[in-house]
Amino acid sequence: MNQPIPPNFQPLADARSVGVVQAQRMRFDEALPLRSGASISGYELVYETYGTLNAARTNAVLICHALNASHHVAGVYADDPGNTGWWDNMVGPGKPVDTERFFVIGVNNLGSCFGSTGPMSPNPATGRPYGPDFPVLTVEDWVHAQARLADRLGIERFAGVMGGSLGGMQALAWACLYPQRVAHCVAIASAPKLSTQNIAFNEVARRAIITDPDFHGGRFYDHDVVPKRGLQVARMIGHITYLSDDVMAEKFGRTLRRHSSDAALRSEYQFTYDIEFEIESYLRYQGEKFSSYFDANTYLLITRALDYFDPALAHDGDLARALAQATADFLVVSFTTDWRFSPERSREIVEALLVNGRRVTYAEVDAPHGHDAFLLEDPQYMAVVRSWFGRIADAVAQTEAV
Amino acid sequence: MNQPIPPNFQPLADARSVGVVQAQRMRFDEALPLRSGASISGYELVYETYGTLNAARTNAVLICHALNASHHVAGVYADDPGNTGWWDNMVGPGKPVDTERFFVIGVNNLGSCFGSTGPMSPNPATGRPYGPDFPVLTVEDWVHAQARLADRLGIERFAGVMGGSLGGMQALAWACLYPQRVAHCVAIASAPKLSTQNIAFNEVARRAIITDPDFHGGRFYDHDVVPKRGLQVARMIGHITYLSDDVMAEKFGRTLRRHSSDAALRSEYQFTYDIEFEIESYLRYQGEKFSSYFDANTYLLITRALDYFDPALAHDGDLARALAQATADFLVVSFTTDWRFSPERSREIVEALLVNGRRVTYAEVDAPHGHDAFLLEDPQYMAVVRSWFGRIADAVAQTEAV
Repeated sequence: MNQPIPPNFQPLADARSVGVVQAQRMRFDEALPLRSGASISGYELVYETYGTLNAARTNAVLICHALNASHHVAGVYADDPGNTGWWDNMVGPGKPVDTERFFVIGVNNLGSCFGSTGPMSPNPATGRPYGPDFPVLTVEDWVHAQARLADRLGIERFAGVMGGSLGGMQALAWACLYPQRVAHCVAIASAPKLSTQNIAFNEVARRAIITDPDFHGGRFYDHDVVPKRGLQVARMIGHITYLSDDVMAEKFGRTLRRHSSDAALRSEYQFTYDIEFEIESYLRYQGEKFSSYFDANTYLLITRALDYFDPALAHDGDLARALAQATADFLVVSFTTDWRFSPERSREIVEALLVNGRRVTYAEVDAPHGHDAFLLEDPQYMAVVRSWFGRIADAVAQTEAV
Repeated sequence: MNQPIPPNFQPLADARSVGVVQAQRMRFDEALPLRSGASISGYELVYETYGTLNAARTNAVLICHALNASHHVAGVYADDPGNTGWWDNMVGPGKPVDTERFFVIGVNNLGSCFGSTGPMSPNPATGRPYGPDFPVLTVEDWVHAQARLADRLGIERFAGVMGGSLGGMQALAWACLYPQRVAHCVAIASAPKLSTQNIAFNEVARRAIITDPDFHGGRFYDHDVVPKRGLQVARMIGHITYLSDDVMAEKFGRTLRRHSSDAALRSEYQFTYDIEFEIESYLRYQGEKFSSYFDANTYLLITRALDYFDPALAHDGDLARALAQATADFLVVSFTTDWRFSPERSREIVEALLVNGRRVTYAEVDAPHGHDAFLLEDPQYMAVVRSWFGRIADAVAQTEAV
């Protein structure tokens, strides 16, 4: 506690970014059976690729995204140069996942609001947005949908499947559901299932959305409104759990938010229920920004997929048995100050893999930033991932040379 | 982590309760100047007393309440025998704070919704409820109001001032503001100020209330509605922070809520955004119950008083200097699994008192229940308080005998 927080790590120079990228779109007409018993057909997945698939098709890496991210992993768009991919510090030429050696795929999950078919898309049965009629999805459903995309792209086996947080859960599910298709699996700041407290936070966020009068039972599109208030509260709760107690204290402390240049006034309370502390201003800003672009039904869908993920459930709670089919080599990374998905949760994954005799690299990174650390450029974290993928790239190159 | 949680402690037998009690009411016409610069006049405080004030008036103990409690500390009401005081396990004949030896006062704070003047009370200026015009209050304002009540009751000096959580902050403020009037000070599961994360959770709760369309800028009384949705979300957030991660896991786990007697069905997901897990059912129930009786303006007022409490602020952040005036003997208690007001925060208080050469007893109780532990009957906790007050009672008796 109270350890000094290093300054924010600067993103690497633009020159090393993948540069201008373009999202692509793939349509799937064949029905995808879902874990709930429902199915979905005529859906589309949006994705991006970076780097070049080698002739042997052995250098593909799939990046799975978390709650608030998308297929836009790296680079920028020609018509939106400020919109940099969410893992641009991780994926690019010369970066830890080196696009000069790997063919990297970012895919937007089914049910998302960033281009793939989701609750905002027209329901073929009615011609109106799915809304609440969009099926409830699970991590496993996403993986099956991603596998179909891999089929279309001609990738039989991934050199790596990788993700942070909810993305790490997808990587784990890939290793279990398609063991022959995953050579290496990377789960960062993840967990084998949500804790009761995790579910509780998700539930409060969902209640804030569902009870917002502008939600209209999920049919708010028809009313030309958005449940902004609920989304704001949901995002504020999320943000508190993404940051460590310490980094929040370091960044905002109990500093009062004052526009005045009068020092005396700046240190006085205003006795108001409006913004008084910097942290309040920050959270409201984050909430408002989020509510301007994120779909409320997608928020419900993704948090529920998180709640439901529990591969050990079908094995009497025995995670080792649940992971027995997985044959990949694993890299598991956690961050000491992550209280959302604590190192303890990552260690559960590691232990279950070791019981099965798997090769596992585990890094517990002493980073101050909480859960958000998986998106930031901690040098130790970056070095671990770089070294791990470097080894994979060497092995891939050797196989090709044979 | 994952330590076994002992069964809930049973309340002591009814025979040892203070029995039937009656709330009393005191009116104050003289204006009370507030820290904000505003003042309030013509207000009332509701309170209860248990035990008998001795002739020397040296055996009075003041109990300060936290967010959701009131003056109803112990016993039951004749017309509401199910409504037991919130600290009935702590205060009563033969209990740790023994009403056969002490004269105990429970007081409802100004701004509360349980009888003392608050936002629901008529504003003398308009004849309508104060609503948002009720002044913003601080912990120090409460203490000054309580001191006036003590004056009226003829208590010059308290044998003890005691509270848990926000109540502990009031006890601390008493010791600083009225050092001659506090012989012993008890701060349980408390903190010298809120952390940034604490403020953040309060802010989310307030936003949920304020953005509820039924809040009407705090004038919902005029519209005959209550911002139930906001209050529910606020209470759900609160509950998550009151419980330890472990006790939540132990009590609810990932258990599915099923009415079916069909075992197979009970272990299957229903793929719904409605209640799926027991924890969701619990939180919704708590939220709904709370929203049926708690005033939304009071919730804002009390959480803001929490935010503002920071005795070190006027001393360049130096808590030792802030507590320098306090001359009481102190008992400070914290609970290992309390992540809302962690033991570390209590240790800050202890250290600042020791710098000033005060006599401090500090107990860090290994209890699994999180912040809620201060309301429960952990045997070690009860024993510490019992022994501490036993010593005080003996000293009081000796002085009387002289």
